[in-house]
Amino acid sequence: MHSWVDGLPAHGLASLKDRGLAYGDGLFETVAVKAGRPVLLELHMQRLVLGCSRLAITADQSLIRSEVLAYAQAMGEGVLKLILTRGDSLRGYAACPEAQPRRILQASPAPAYPLAHALEGVQLFDCATRLAEQPLLAGLKHLNRLEQVIARSEWQDPAYAEGLMRDTSGRVIEGVFSNLFLVRDGVLITADLQRCGVAGVMRAALLSEAERLAIPCHVTDISVEQLQQADELFVCNSVYGIWPVRGVAGLSWPVGPLTRKLQSIARTLLDV
Amino acid sequence: MHSWVDGLPAHGLASLKDRGLAYGDGLFETVAVKAGRPVLLELHMQRLVLGCSRLAITADQSLIRSEVLAYAQAMGEGVLKLILTRGDSLRGYAACPEAQPRRILQASPAPAYPLAHALEGVQLFDCATRLAEQPLLAGLKHLNRLEQVIARSEWQDPAYAEGLMRDTSGRVIEGVFSNLFLVRDGVLITADLQRCGVAGVMRAALLSEAERLAIPCHVTDISVEQLQQADELFVCNSVYGIWPVRGVAGLSWPVGPLTRKLQSIARTLLDV
Repeated sequence: MHSWVDGLPAHGLASLKDRGLAYGDGLFETVAVKAGRPVLLELHMQRLVLGCSRLAITADQSLIRSEVLAYAQAMGEGVLKLILTRGDSLRGYAACPEAQPRRILQASPAPAYPLAHALEGVQLFDCATRLAEQPLLAGLKHLNRLEQVIARSEWQDPAYAEGLMRDTSGRVIEGVFSNLFLVRDGVLITADLQRCGVAGVMRAALLSEAERLAIPCHVTDISVEQLQQADELFVCNSVYGIWPVRGVAGLSWPVGPLTRKLQSIARTLLDV
Repeated sequence: MHSWVDGLPAHGLASLKDRGLAYGDGLFETVAVKAGRPVLLELHMQRLVLGCSRLAITADQSLIRSEVLAYAQAMGEGVLKLILTRGDSLRGYAACPEAQPRRILQASPAPAYPLAHALEGVQLFDCATRLAEQPLLAGLKHLNRLEQVIARSEWQDPAYAEGLMRDTSGRVIEGVFSNLFLVRDGVLITADLQRCGVAGVMRAALLSEAERLAIPCHVTDISVEQLQQADELFVCNSVYGIWPVRGVAGLSWPVGPLTRKLQSIARTLLDV
């Protein structure tokens, strides 16, 4: 299916003056599409609105929403990627005040992950690449993603379904394209993302579900020692749901009961 | 003048699948062009080669060089911007091994900075935006530039020609689009860029010239206290050369003799 740029089929081309290309000056969302509908759209839009606010990008959110809905309808099934940039400008970091933010929509097939990832769990590659601590950008799904690109280049072996990333201070943060949860003594724990990391839509959905189900939940800094002591571990995102983590860096975990419970909930959330 | 993409006139459009747009996965160089020749080309190419090596982008450097030379010749005067991305890929952080790096060349007029910037010196805005510490990317002129975009958005008042940036630990690093030098007791001092910052081409040229002229020079961490105690201060880049810094954050400096000496050298370097 053709990409759309600003609501129109774009035949694969974007403006060379776009600040997304020049500086990574923008945001993106990766949205599962099922039966012509964007899954977890409200949470994706909430994160986009937060990102626009933090980056001072003034975009017409209702127009974006309507284009995403129309594009998903046309796609049917797969993964919709929305890129929202600050638009065009002349050379230089100063933005052009009259620039119009640019909306790019792209369609991909649903990724063909092995079923075993969800059923039996996955191994994580222990990435050497650390996440820098930048509170101004933490949590956002912005277009400055060289850390993830470098981290993902660390392994080619398909035995590793994901990579584990720490920050430059050694805290355990997330996967390369997933968020991470631990379970310890019945408490669900996920990293505080005030300094770095991407606040994933599935992470947000699971935090809400945990609250609804009165599952105790801590959003906090996580040390490697806490990782070692975890009873269960899983990664999640809004495309694949939840994968139990069976091992990383010589450590191993069973697939635990809370992981299975939340996995079932994530599957329901994605099967809209 | 038309942009070129991979050596051909591009009519302002780039591939929507380019990883430069998706992730800021690439590098750039901003090169002054005088009388059809790219100024300080060897230093720009050296930094590009270093960036390609650090990001594992395998590009044909002699092809890039020949395109830059031809494009500069066609431009005549102005600023040439080279963007080198990892090329296209499918969705996801993993690069496509067979992807061809993409070369984008863009022309802009030489910026019309007030002559007073060079003659009388400039005021720096004291940016609140801090540079995150990421040794894997430090020194490179990569396309992940949201920190500079946010910093540059902090001021609109043309009384400030540049902004001063510190890192998240408070060290004094650079300008938003310049490097910074102090002079103290006849010693030239510039920030160590092992943790963050862009290792500018004019900075490299001035370090070489200082060595040639036996001007003592330290590349080291710089504290705010050292900034306060400096005898002279200047910013530099490969387009405007050197601007003396007269003030930042309530501090002030005269335009000093070593600044004037290096400014004259920088002018010579740019007047190729």
